[in-house]
Amino acid sequence: MKRTLGVCYYPEHWPEDLWADDATRMVRAGLSWVRIGEFAWSRIEPKPETFDWEWLDRAIDTLGEAGLKIILGTPTATPPRWMLEKHPDMLAVDEQGRPRGFGSRRHYCFSHQGYRAESRRITAILAERYGANRHIAAWQTDNEYACHDTTRSYSSAALAGFQTWLAQKYQSTDALNRAWGNVFWSMECDDFTDIGLPNLTVTEPNHPHVLDFYRYSSDMVADFNREQVAEIRERSTAPIIHNYMGRETSFDHFKVGADLDIASWDSYPIGFLSDRLEGAPDFKARFMRQGHPDNQAFHHDLYRAVGRAGGAPSPAGGRWWVMEQQPGPVNWAPYNPAPLPGMARLWAWEAFAHGAETVCYFRWRQAPWAQEQMHAGLLRPDNEDAPALAECLQVAREIETLPDVGTARADVALVFDYESAWAWEAQPQGADFDQFRLAFAAYRACRRLGLNVDILPPDAADLSAYKITLAPGIMSVSAPLKQALAATPEGHVALIGPRTDTKTEHLSIPTPMGPNIDPLDLAVTLTESIPPQASIPLENGGQFLHWREVPEGSAPVLLRCADGLPAIAGGPLRYLAGWPDDPTWDTILRGVCDEVGLTHHTLPDGLRIRDTDTHRFVFNYAPEPLLWNGTAIPPAGVHWEAL
Amino acid sequence: MKRTLGVCYYPEHWPEDLWADDATRMVRAGLSWVRIGEFAWSRIEPKPETFDWEWLDRAIDTLGEAGLKIILGTPTATPPRWMLEKHPDMLAVDEQGRPRGFGSRRHYCFSHQGYRAESRRITAILAERYGANRHIAAWQTDNEYACHDTTRSYSSAALAGFQTWLAQKYQSTDALNRAWGNVFWSMECDDFTDIGLPNLTVTEPNHPHVLDFYRYSSDMVADFNREQVAEIRERSTAPIIHNYMGRETSFDHFKVGADLDIASWDSYPIGFLSDRLEGAPDFKARFMRQGHPDNQAFHHDLYRAVGRAGGAPSPAGGRWWVMEQQPGPVNWAPYNPAPLPGMARLWAWEAFAHGAETVCYFRWRQAPWAQEQMHAGLLRPDNEDAPALAECLQVAREIETLPDVGTARADVALVFDYESAWAWEAQPQGADFDQFRLAFAAYRACRRLGLNVDILPPDAADLSAYKITLAPGIMSVSAPLKQALAATPEGHVALIGPRTDTKTEHLSIPTPMGPNIDPLDLAVTLTESIPPQASIPLENGGQFLHWREVPEGSAPVLLRCADGLPAIAGGPLRYLAGWPDDPTWDTILRGVCDEVGLTHHTLPDGLRIRDTDTHRFVFNYAPEPLLWNGTAIPPAGVHWEAL
Amino acid sequence: MKRTLGVCYYPEHWPEDLWADDATRMVRAGLSWVRIGEFAWSRIEPKPETFDWEWLDRAIDTLGEAGLKIILGTPTATPPRWMLEKHPDMLAVDEQGRPRGFGSRRHYCFSHQGYRAESRRITAILAERYGANRHIAAWQTDNEYACHDTTRSYSSAALAGFQTWLAQKYQSTDALNRAWGNVFWSMECDDFTDIGLPNLTVTEPNHPHVLDFYRYSSDMVADFNREQVAEIRERSTAPIIHNYMGRETSFDHFKVGADLDIASWDSYPIGFLSDRLEGAPDFKARFMRQGHPDNQAFHHDLYRAVGRAGGAPSPAGGRWWVMEQQPGPVNWAPYNPAPLPGMARLWAWEAFAHGAETVCYFRWRQAPWAQEQMHAGLLRPDNEDAPALAECLQVAREIETLPDVGTARADVALVFDYESAWAWEAQPQGADFDQFRLAFAAYRACRRLGLNVDILPPDAADLSAYKITLAPGIMSVSAPLKQALAATPEGHVALIGPRTDTKTEHLSIPTPMGPNIDPLDLAVTLTESIPPQASIPLENGGQFLHWREVPEGSAPVLLRCADGLPAIAGGPLRYLAGWPDDPTWDTILRGVCDEVGLTHHTLPDGLRIRDTDTHRFVFNYAPEPLLWNGTAIPPAGVHWEAL
Ligand SMILES: [Zn+2]
Ligand SMILES: [Zn+2]
Ligand SMILES: [Zn+2]
Repeated sequence: MKRTLGVCYYPEHWPEDLWADDATRMVRAGLSWVRIGEFAWSRIEPKPETFDWEWLDRAIDTLGEAGLKIILGTPTATPPRWMLEKHPDMLAVDEQGRPRGFGSRRHYCFSHQGYRAESRRITAILAERYGANRHIAAWQTDNEYACHDTTRSYSSAALAGFQTWLAQKYQSTDALNRAWGNVFWSMECDDFTDIGLPNLTVTEPNHPHVLDFYRYSSDMVADFNREQVAEIRERSTAPIIHNYMGRETSFDHFKVGADLDIASWDSYPIGFLSDRLEGAPDFKARFMRQGHPDNQAFHHDLYRAVGRAGGAPSPAGGRWWVMEQQPGPVNWAPYNPAPLPGMARLWAWEAFAHGAETVCYFRWRQAPWAQEQMHAGLLRPDNEDAPALAECLQVAREIETLPDVGTARADVALVFDYESAWAWEAQPQGADFDQFRLAFAAYRACRRLGLNVDILPPDAADLSAYKITLAPGIMSVSAPLKQALAATPEGHVALIGPRTDTKTEHLSIPTPMGPNIDPLDLAVTLTESIPPQASIPLENGGQFLHWREVPEGSAPVLLRCADGLPAIAGGPLRYLAGWPDDPTWDTILRGVCDEVGLTHHTLPDGLRIRDTDTHRFVFNYAPEPLLWNGTAIPPAGVHWEAL
Repeated sequence: MKRTLGVCYYPEHWPEDLWADDATRMVRAGLSWVRIGEFAWSRIEPKPETFDWEWLDRAIDTLGEAGLKIILGTPTATPPRWMLEKHPDMLAVDEQGRPRGFGSRRHYCFSHQGYRAESRRITAILAERYGANRHIAAWQTDNEYACHDTTRSYSSAALAGFQTWLAQKYQSTDALNRAWGNVFWSMECDDFTDIGLPNLTVTEPNHPHVLDFYRYSSDMVADFNREQVAEIRERSTAPIIHNYMGRETSFDHFKVGADLDIASWDSYPIGFLSDRLEGAPDFKARFMRQGHPDNQAFHHDLYRAVGRAGGAPSPAGGRWWVMEQQPGPVNWAPYNPAPLPGMARLWAWEAFAHGAETVCYFRWRQAPWAQEQMHAGLLRPDNEDAPALAECLQVAREIETLPDVGTARADVALVFDYESAWAWEAQPQGADFDQFRLAFAAYRACRRLGLNVDILPPDAADLSAYKITLAPGIMSVSAPLKQALAATPEGHVALIGPRTDTKTEHLSIPTPMGPNIDPLDLAVTLTESIPPQASIPLENGGQFLHWREVPEGSAPVLLRCADGLPAIAGGPLRYLAGWPDDPTWDTILRGVCDEVGLTHHTLPDGLRIRDTDTHRFVFNYAPEPLLWNGTAIPPAGVHWEAL
Repeated sequence: MKRTLGVCYYPEHWPEDLWADDATRMVRAGLSWVRIGEFAWSRIEPKPETFDWEWLDRAIDTLGEAGLKIILGTPTATPPRWMLEKHPDMLAVDEQGRPRGFGSRRHYCFSHQGYRAESRRITAILAERYGANRHIAAWQTDNEYACHDTTRSYSSAALAGFQTWLAQKYQSTDALNRAWGNVFWSMECDDFTDIGLPNLTVTEPNHPHVLDFYRYSSDMVADFNREQVAEIRERSTAPIIHNYMGRETSFDHFKVGADLDIASWDSYPIGFLSDRLEGAPDFKARFMRQGHPDNQAFHHDLYRAVGRAGGAPSPAGGRWWVMEQQPGPVNWAPYNPAPLPGMARLWAWEAFAHGAETVCYFRWRQAPWAQEQMHAGLLRPDNEDAPALAECLQVAREIETLPDVGTARADVALVFDYESAWAWEAQPQGADFDQFRLAFAAYRACRRLGLNVDILPPDAADLSAYKITLAPGIMSVSAPLKQALAATPEGHVALIGPRTDTKTEHLSIPTPMGPNIDPLDLAVTLTESIPPQASIPLENGGQFLHWREVPEGSAPVLLRCADGLPAIAGGPLRYLAGWPDDPTWDTILRGVCDEVGLTHHTLPDGLRIRDTDTHRFVFNYAPEPLLWNGTAIPPAGVHWEAL
C-alpha cells in the first residue's frame, strides 16, 4: 500500500459553489483522502428528527467524483443546541461540581444514557444512509475523545453509572471495602449507593477509589465508542477510525483501539510543545517552530501499538494514521509560532517513517470565524495558498518515489500503561511524578541513541523479538507480561522500574513487596520523592531526579548510588531504582546496548532517525544544519537512505 | 479657569462636632472642592422609604458656608443591606457562577431592572433635594464603575438582557449564526432564548459570542449611568462627573463619557504599579514610591479624551479631573509603600500639566476602621496632619502663581479602542497580547522621547492636526478613522498595527484580508505569537516580542525582519507588523519624528515632560536627582518653564 | 518522671492474630505507650446504635497485658458514612460555597449541632465503657483539629451560629455597626440575621467582620473539644490530650489547651519543611532530610506553653507530648524524601530536651492501602523492621541513662497570639505579612544565638523571669501583658513590634495611635509594606524587609534607618519599627543580650542547642559534621553534657 495524504474539510462552512473547485485543488495538491462531517450535526439534523441530507449528499458526490476517498465522521462531539432541551442533564460536570455548558464542543457526559442513545441513533442513521456509498472509504467515530479534560464527569449520571460498575466489579461492599482499605479513616460503606464520586472531599480521597473512578470513566469512553462501531459495522464494511490526541492518558486507548480498525491521532507539534510538554525555556525557544523532536515519534509509536490492538497485519505494524497534521500556526496554545519552512513536510515524512498509512492535514481552508479562525490551513481564509500547501504537494510527489508503507521491527520495546498513569495521578507521592513524563524520558533517551522503539501494551506476552525492553512505572505488572519479563534470556535486557510492579491491582502495597517477578530477587522497601532542587548522585557520576527507591534482595547490583544503595540490580531482568536525568539515561542505555550488541548513535541535538523495513530516515528538528554521516541536513530537512 | 484642589470627605464617618473644624482646615489647606455622599445610602435612607436628610443638610451647609464647593455623589455603589430583601436576585454573578454577596461594595448587577429602578429613584430623590442647593457645584454618578471586575455579571438578569440585546441587534438568529460563524461546531441556535452566557463552556466559547457579551455588558454600564444623568439633569444644572479607574477597559468610557460633562479618574500611582502594571522586579523596586512614570500621564490623556466625548471646549481639551489622588500608602495593593516625599505634589502638578481642572485628594482623614483603615489621608486617624497635607498646601500656593488651566495640542495622536481590548481578551492568540499593554507600550515610547500625546477615540475623523498618528491593535477600523488614516498627507506619518484592521466588526477575518485601508496595499496573511523566551530580530538590530505578522502586498518595505519579512511597510500611512521591544519602539519613533520634523528628546530614566499651552513641565519620577537642560531636578521634583 | 516512647497503632487494620506479636515487638522496641482508636468509628458502631466492642476489648486487653499503656482516641474525626444519612447537612462548606464531602476525613462542621450531639454521644459511650479500664492511661480527643483547613466552615449551621454569637457579643446591631465601622460603604445592618459570612463578597469583606468570624470559628473548636472533655471527665480520671498540628493558627490553642491536661502535637519535620515553611530552594535542599532546624523546637516551646494553659506543674513546664513523630518518608507533602539516618532519634531527643514527657512514633506498621500507604512506620507493610525501629530502640536505651523530664527556665520570652494571626490574615496590608512567619523569624534568631525560649500566651501577666521579652505583631496587647511590659525593669529588655498594639480589639486604629503602653512614648503614625525585591536599609548596615513603620514620640532612638527614621526606640521597653532580615535580627538580639548580660553563641548553620534543668543538648541538623566546643557532632548527631 502506498502512503497517502489527506485533508480535513468542512463543506458546511463554505458556499456550495466553492466545493468543486476545492475538490479539484485537493486532487492537484496530491491529496487522496478528505475527512468531513464530524461537526455538522446541526446541519444534518437542524431540528429533532428533521434531517437535511441533500447538502451532504452533494458534498460527498462532488468530492468523491473528483477522485477523493472520504472519511465520514459521526458528529457526536458537537450535539446541537436542541439536544439540551431533550436532555437537560446530559452535560458533564467538572471536578468543582459545575456543569460544563453548551457553547463550544464535547458538551456531553459519557455516562448519560439519554445521550448515549442519541449517539447510537445518529450513528445508525448516518451509517444507514452512507454505509454503502462508494465514496465513503472510512469512518471516524466522534472526535478527539477526552480533549478538554472530558473523560471524567462528576455528574449524577456518572455517579449512578459508577455505583453500578462497582457493584458489578466487587459484588459486595465487603469486597470493595477490603480492596480499597476502607477501614482506614472509617470510610467503609454498606451499600453501593453510599459511594460517592471522588471529588470535593476534605482532603485527598482514597487512591483506589480514585483509580476505580478513572477506570470506570475510561470504560465509558470505550463503551461509547463501541456502540458507534456496532452501528456502523452493521451497515458498512469500510474501516473505522478514531482520532486520538497527544499526551492524553485519561482513557485506555488500547481498549478503545481494540474495537477499531485503524488508530489515528491529531499531531500538533508546536501547540503541544507550548501547552503540554515539560521543557526548559531555552529548549522550548530552540524548538518553538519545530515542536519537540521526540514527541511526534513517541505518539506515532504509541498509536501504532494502539492500531495493533485492533488486529495488526504484523506484530510491529498496527494500522495507523495521522488524522490531523498541523500545517501552520494554531490558535489554542499559550503561544502559537509559525512552523519553520519545511516542517509540514518533515512531520508528514516522520509519520510515514514510523509506519503511518495516511497523513491528513488539518484543515483545508482556514475558517474566517469562530474559535479556530486563527488556526492555519492549507489555504488561507481568502482562498489563497497557505505556505504548507506547497510542502504537501512536495510530499505527495516524494511518496511516488518511495516504496510502500512499512516499518522496521524495533530493537527496543517500551511498555506503556494507561492504568499506571491513573494510579500515579491519584497517588503521585512526588509532585513531579507522571507516568507519561517517565515513559517519555525513557523514550527520548532511546531516540537520542538512534534506536527504533516499539511501544507495547501492558499485557504484552512476548518480548523475545526485542533485545531491550523498558517498563518504567508499571504499577502492577500483568500476568502475561510478568511471564515474558521472567523469560528475558541472556543477551537481552529487560530494565524495569522505577515504581514497577510495586502495587497490587487495587493500588495497594503487596506482601511480599514488589516487584514480584521471578527470577528477580529484589523488593522495593522504601520510596522517596525528591524536590527539583535536589538529586541523588550515582557512583558513575550520573544522578536520579524526582524519585528514588531503596531495593533489597539478592539481585546483583549493577550500579550504585553514591550513598552505596543499589541504583540498578538484577540480571537480564533488572530493576532501575530511580528516575535518571537525561545524561544518566544515555549512559545506562548505551551500556545496555553494548551489552546486548545493539548499535547506537550519538545524535546531535535535534537530529533524529527512524528506520522502515527498507530505509533509514533522518530528520533535522534543529534550527541549524546538522551533519549525518558527513551529509549536511538543513533545518527541517528530511533525508533517507536505503538500508 | 484657575486650577483647583479638592478632597473626598465622609461626614457620616465623624462626630458632627468635627465638621466645622474640618471645613476650616480644608480651606486653610488650599482646597476648593469637597466630594461627599457617595457611600452614604444607609445613612440617607436607613430603612426603605425612610429618609434621614438632616445630617446631610447640615454637612452640606457647614462645608458650603466655609467656602467649599461640593461634589455630591449618588450612593448607588453601596446599596444598603435592606435592598437585598427587596431584590434578592440583584447581586451580580461571577464567571464561576457564584453570586457576589453583600459585605463590601459594588454588590449589584447592572442588568437587574429592579436595582436600576432603585438607582433612578434614589438619584431623583437626591437631585430633587439638592439640585438647586447653591453649594452643590457638581455631581458624581455612582463610584468607580467596573472596579473589582463588576462590569460583567453572569446572572439570570444578565442572560435575559443579553438575549434581548442580541435580538435587537441581529433581528434573526440566522443573522446571528452567520455573524458568529455558529455553523462551526454545530453551535447554531434557532431562538434567541437558546443563547447562553459565554461562561463555563467546555473549552473556549465562540469569540464573537464573547465580544457581543462584553459589548452588552459595557452598554449596561452606559445605560445605568445615563439613567442617573437624566434624573440629575432634570433637577440640576451643575456638571455631572464620574470617577473612572486605572487600567480599566471592561466598558467603553467614551460612551459613558458622552453623557457626562467632565471625566475624572482615581489616580493611585503606587497601588497601580504594584497590582496592575507589567514591569520587571527591579523596575518596580526603582519606582515603588513614585509609581510608573508614564501610567498617570497615559490616563490623564485618556480621560481628557473621554472628557471630550462629553462635548469639549476645544479639540485638545476635554474637561477632566483627578477625583481621587493617592496621598500616602494605600491598603489594597499586594505591597503598599509610602510615597517619596514630594510625590503628592508631583502627581497633582502632572495632572494639571495634562490639563486637569481639579485634583481631589482621597481622603481627608484616614478612617480608623473598616476596609480602608490602612489607606492614608491628608489627616491621620488621630486628626493630626499627615505628610501629604503640606504638599497639598504647597500646590495650592503654586497654583496662584501660574496661569489658568490649559493643555498643549499634542503632536502625536494615539488611538485607543475599548472594543479592541475586549476582542483581544476574547481571542488573545498569544498569552501576552493585551490591548492596554500594547497601546501603553506605544505611549511609553512617546514619553521617553518627550512627545506630547493626545489619545483619540476609535471613531476619530480628523487626524490632520497630528504629525504622527499611532493606531496599534485596532481590531476593526471605523469608517471615519479609515478615511482619516487614508488621508495621511506627505510629511505626516500614521503608523498602524500590529493587528490593526485585521478583523471585521464581528471579530472574524475579512476577505480581502486586512488591513483594508486605501492606499495601503498590504494584507496580514499570517500571524504568530511568540513565547517570552523568544523574539523576532529585525535587520536594524531591534526586535519584536510577543507578536509578529506576515504582510503581503505592494506597500514599500521600510524596515525588514532579519528573516527578510517586512517589519514596517507603506508610505505616510504604514503598517507595523509586530510588537517592538522598548528600544525598538524608540528607534522607530525617533526615525518617524525626524521624518516629519518633530523635535524629540532622549530623557533620562524617570524624567518626563509635558507642555501646556504656556509652559513646559518637567517631572522627576526617579529616586535620584536628574538633569534637565543643566538644571538638577531632585527626586519627586517638579520644574516648569515658560514656552 | 522518666521520658517515655510510644507508637500509634490501628488494630482494626490488621488480622487479630498479629496483635499479640505486635504488642511484644512494641515492648521490645522500648515503647511504653500505644495510641489507638481515633479513626475506628465504623468498626465500633458499624450501624447507628449497633456497637461492636468485642474486637476493641480484645485489642486493649492484648496491648495492655503486654505492658503497654493505652491512649484511647475519640473517633470523631472520621464519622462513618451512615452519619451523613442522619445529618445530611453536617458537612462543612468551603470558602467557595462547596460542601466538603465524605471520602477522606474531618468531614464535619464544628457548628452543626446535630453532629455535636453525636460527638458527645460517642464520647460518652466510649468513656463509659473504658473510663475505668486499667489499661487506658490517657485519652485523645478527636484528631488534629483544623487539619486540612477545617476550622472555618461557610455552612448554614455556621451562619446561624455566628449570628447568635454576634448577638451575644454585641447585644445590639448598633454596637456591632460601631465596632466594625459598618457606616463605611453602607454596610450597616439592623438585625443580626442580616449579617452574612465573610466569603464571596465582591471585594474584601470588612476586616473586623472577618476577625469576628475567625474568633467564632475558633470558639466552636474549643466548644467541641470541651464537650468531649466533659463527657470523659465524668467517667475517667486519666489525663486528656489533643494532638495539634504544625503551623496551624486557625484556632486558639491556648483556649483549647485550657480544658486539657496535656498538650501534644504531630511532628513531621520533613513534610512541614516541604509544604508549609518559607525557605529558599537551596535551604530546603540542604535540610530536606532533616526538616527545618528550628521548626520542631518552635512548636515544642509553643505547645509546652499550651500545656501550661491546662494547669502547669511549674511556670516553665506545661505537660506536653509529641503524639505523632515522623519515622520515615510521609505521603502528603509535595516532595517526600527519607530522613537522614539518625533523625528519628534526633527528633525524639530534641522533643525531650524541650520538656516532652512522651514521644510517640506514627505509626507502628505502614498500612498497605488507602491514603497513607506511602507513609512509613516503624515496621514496613510486609512486617519487617523499618529503619526507624532501631533508632527508636536506641532512644529507649538512652532514656534510661538520663535524668527525668525537665526543662530549663528560658531567658527569652516570646509572646505568641492566635488572634493576631487572624487579624493579619484578614488585613495583611502586605502580601508577605504573616504572624507565624514573623514570630518564627524572631524565634529563629534566638536559636541561632543558642538562647532558650519560652513562648507565652497573649495574656501573660508576669515577665519578670525573662531578661528578654519579644512581642512582635501582637495586634492589641491585653491589659495584663501591658502591665507586665510596662514593668520591664532596667537590666531587662522587652522588644515589641513591628505592628504591636497598633489596633483596638475590634481591629481598628486607636486614638491615640498605638502602641499605648506606658512608659513608651511612641506612636506608629504611618505603615508601609515592601515588595520582596526592595528593603529598607538601616544605619548599622542591616535592613528591614516586608514591613516598616514610622514612629513618633519622645522615646529615645536606639537605632535608625538609613533615611533617619527610627528603627528601634524606647528604654527597657522598646519598639522595633520593622521586620529585620535574619542577619539584622542577629545583630539586634546580640546587642540586647550584651546589654542584659545574657550569654549567646554563634552557632554554625544547622547546629542547635537546648538546655534542660540538668543538661545541655546539642543537635546537628546539618548534612555534614559540625563542631561544638571542639567536639565533632556527626550529621543527625545528638550530644549532651551536664550543666
Ligand atoms: Zn447507607
Ligand atoms: Zn431552542
Ligand atoms: Zn434586615
